[in-house]
Amino acid sequence: MTRRTAGVLGGMGPAATIDFMAKVLVHSQGSRGPGGREQDDVRLIVDSNPAVPDRNAAVAGTGPSPAPFLADMARGLERAGVDFLVMPCNAAHAFADAVRAATPVPFVSLIDEAVAALRTRFPGVERVGVLAVNGCADARLYENALAPAGIEAVTPQGALRRRFMDTVWAIKRGDKSRGSIEDMRLVANALIEQGASVIIAGCTEVPLLLADGDLDVPMLDSTDVLALRTVAYARGEALPGQ
Amino acid sequence: MTRRTAGVLGGMGPAATIDFMAKVLVHSQGSRGPGGREQDDVRLIVDSNPAVPDRNAAVAGTGPSPAPFLADMARGLERAGVDFLVMPCNAAHAFADAVRAATPVPFVSLIDEAVAALRTRFPGVERVGVLAVNGCADARLYENALAPAGIEAVTPQGALRRRFMDTVWAIKRGDKSRGSIEDMRLVANALIEQGASVIIAGCTEVPLLLADGDLDVPMLDSTDVLALRTVAYARGEALPGQ
Repeated sequence: MTRRTAGVLGGMGPAATIDFMAKVLVHSQGSRGPGGREQDDVRLIVDSNPAVPDRNAAVAGTGPSPAPFLADMARGLERAGVDFLVMPCNAAHAFADAVRAATPVPFVSLIDEAVAALRTRFPGVERVGVLAVNGCADARLYENALAPAGIEAVTPQGALRRRFMDTVWAIKRGDKSRGSIEDMRLVANALIEQGASVIIAGCTEVPLLLADGDLDVPMLDSTDVLALRTVAYARGEALPGQ
Repeated sequence: MTRRTAGVLGGMGPAATIDFMAKVLVHSQGSRGPGGREQDDVRLIVDSNPAVPDRNAAVAGTGPSPAPFLADMARGLERAGVDFLVMPCNAAHAFADAVRAATPVPFVSLIDEAVAALRTRFPGVERVGVLAVNGCADARLYENALAPAGIEAVTPQGALRRRFMDTVWAIKRGDKSRGSIEDMRLVANALIEQGASVIIAGCTEVPLLLADGDLDVPMLDSTDVLALRTVAYARGEALPGQ
């Protein structure tokens, strides 16, 4: 029932990659079919490489580029035999072209899949809040993907952005305390006050603290969307652009 | 600070592999050193391949061998560039020789590391209970590794073994219910009644239900031992046999 092996450009951060794998497993178990066993679950080959340079500094021009790391990882996964690639890190998609250039293995964009899921699940939505880190927001990844659909994206700015970044760095240190959860909720609520009717968890660290149902508006978990789509592609659905 | 990339022969089952990765991350974060960042964490390349045939049926001679699957996975991880291999599945170690024959990349044995940790942490222990599935028990993996140290292993037998296996299959279906936890505790308690002063979680599904502290005697989590040792080897400790 599984036809393709997914290659995962991971480790950005490692906890977010583990969260992604856990969500793939849930969707895989849910699509085993009657009488399904462990052997029917989806195969993933995962390069969890935390050494990839900080995406935020790279987009800001103050740090080294992740591009050569991502290209090497993509080629390694190709040699290991994967059929398509995913990358459970939103900000790293600012360097997605380096992955596409490194290997002919099809690359499934987290940003494109999240936007497609948003449009399907929330038809008519006009303004969404995107919990995006500096690199993702500065590269306008969601803004550019949402604009053709006439959807406006609001992201944390100024002091709110700094508070959001501090919370993301805390998660990356393993901090999932009540204080971090409240900080994350505060940032999301500020975007809701700016008119967002849906919040996109546009950083794969966010769902380590917040789940859909924790806010006054629906939250679209980009990690979970990518996991669901990874299972669909592994089960044989036509890959994007093919 | 990280010198080697660990290759993980995983997916047996996928949830156990995720548990292993989470434990590697905890030990990696704990050994980052002062001022350490995400970029200092340990790199893992993981082949989470649930399609590997059932180890129990293979050891019993009633099902296909996992050996060619494990050999292919080991070669794929070698091509991806790993420096050593680990396999967070106890029963699959009945086929460890196939991994060793497939690639010159050093293989770190979960069984050997668990037994070494047992002897270090519990000097003088005479009888341990091993929560081992059919394949692991029938291949006498722990019995053979413990005998040279004069340590006796007791494993679930008869009806107790069947109850244990039913619980393991339930975990593999995603069942972490109270009933499953109580069943697992019942099996462990029966081994304690047979004189075991330490319980080895000798199946990587077990710590998905039970943690050290949940029993009347200490529990050695073989997944956690392998995770701790993986971080040590990734940080530069001499590999076994080198």
